[in-house]
Amino acid sequence: MQSLLDRIRAEGKVLPGNILNVGSFLNQQADIGLYNEIGREFARRFSDVEVSRILTVEASGIGIACVTAQYFSVPVVFARKFRAKNIGEDLYSAEVTSYTHGIDYTITVPRPYIPSGDSVLLIDDFLANGCALEGLAALTLAAGARLAGAGVVIEKGFQQGGRRLREKNIRIESLAVIDSMGEDGEMVLRTGPSKN
Amino acid sequence: MQSLLDRIRAEGKVLPGNILNVGSFLNQQADIGLYNEIGREFARRFSDVEVSRILTVEASGIGIACVTAQYFSVPVVFARKFRAKNIGEDLYSAEVTSYTHGIDYTITVPRPYIPSGDSVLLIDDFLANGCALEGLAALTLAAGARLAGAGVVIEKGFQQGGRRLREKNIRIESLAVIDSMGEDGEMVLRTGPSKN
Repeated sequence: MQSLLDRIRAEGKVLPGNILNVGSFLNQQADIGLYNEIGREFARRFSDVEVSRILTVEASGIGIACVTAQYFSVPVVFARKFRAKNIGEDLYSAEVTSYTHGIDYTITVPRPYIPSGDSVLLIDDFLANGCALEGLAALTLAAGARLAGAGVVIEKGFQQGGRRLREKNIRIESLAVIDSMGEDGEMVLRTGPSKN
Repeated sequence: MQSLLDRIRAEGKVLPGNILNVGSFLNQQADIGLYNEIGREFARRFSDVEVSRILTVEASGIGIACVTAQYFSVPVVFARKFRAKNIGEDLYSAEVTSYTHGIDYTITVPRPYIPSGDSVLLIDDFLANGCALEGLAALTLAAGARLAGAGVVIEKGFQQGGRRLREKNIRIESLAVIDSMGEDGEMVLRTGPSKN
């Protein structure tokens, strides 16, 4: 997705700890025109599978998921993050480790919000170690729903999440892949006609 | 907004502590068709003022704000919530008390995400005690931006936030107003041709 790659090159800031800050257009400040392009592209890539529900995790995935959902005409559900492990019985929950923030947390969704038999597309802004998407996949399967795949805006191709999820036969569509990030602020974006 | 009132009547659940759970269509699970109706209605109500940016607060306001922003063709910024008070210098911050959750927290936005001179519309799902909107208004004014007003999906008319904000000459447009909520699960929704 060329407009996304251009934007990452122009505004993405490489920070210590393999963090890519794209807050000026992709999360804390959102370019809604770009969100619409992203949504259309996810709809194009997943046009061959049934999608009846989009699942994401708070907070920065929510806006992208809601704009994307317009192109699928489906509802959005977001999982909440908790530091506590004591979760009520009426919730699906999964443990997630955040390497970025160095903490463990629990993600939860009320059981009625993932009906069994639904076909769930996961949407998130980043795929790095893959723990958030693994947690969302676990919620989906716990609910007895099918996993249509995962749409990711930016994949850090040099981290292990993408490989690990694909080895589990989870279909991942990443709109941009970063092949390397250096301590000097350099990054290498994958180009060319890749399905990822 | 009749479709919203109908939905609140059909699915809203009154919980102890004056909490109204509308998670099945307005936040944790989002009916994106309804989000579009909400966005169009905010655009209609604020069509007489300049809006160059929408500001909300994580997490449940983000989806509504992003879908609404399509009808204004403006970017969205969301404030992050922190429990800590030690905030960096490159952020605007405001203290907020959450009566619902019984905690104080700090909301922050990176300074470049609210340019001075912008005309900012606040968007949130609920207005109860008004502390979150007051915090967002404080961030806006700290940035030297103008406050176009606040668009709220559901106002708890029996709590003090709406009155307090209007006394400060902040324009509030609420798409549904709840006049009372009882311990027995009853609620009274304001009807009729009200501006609010």
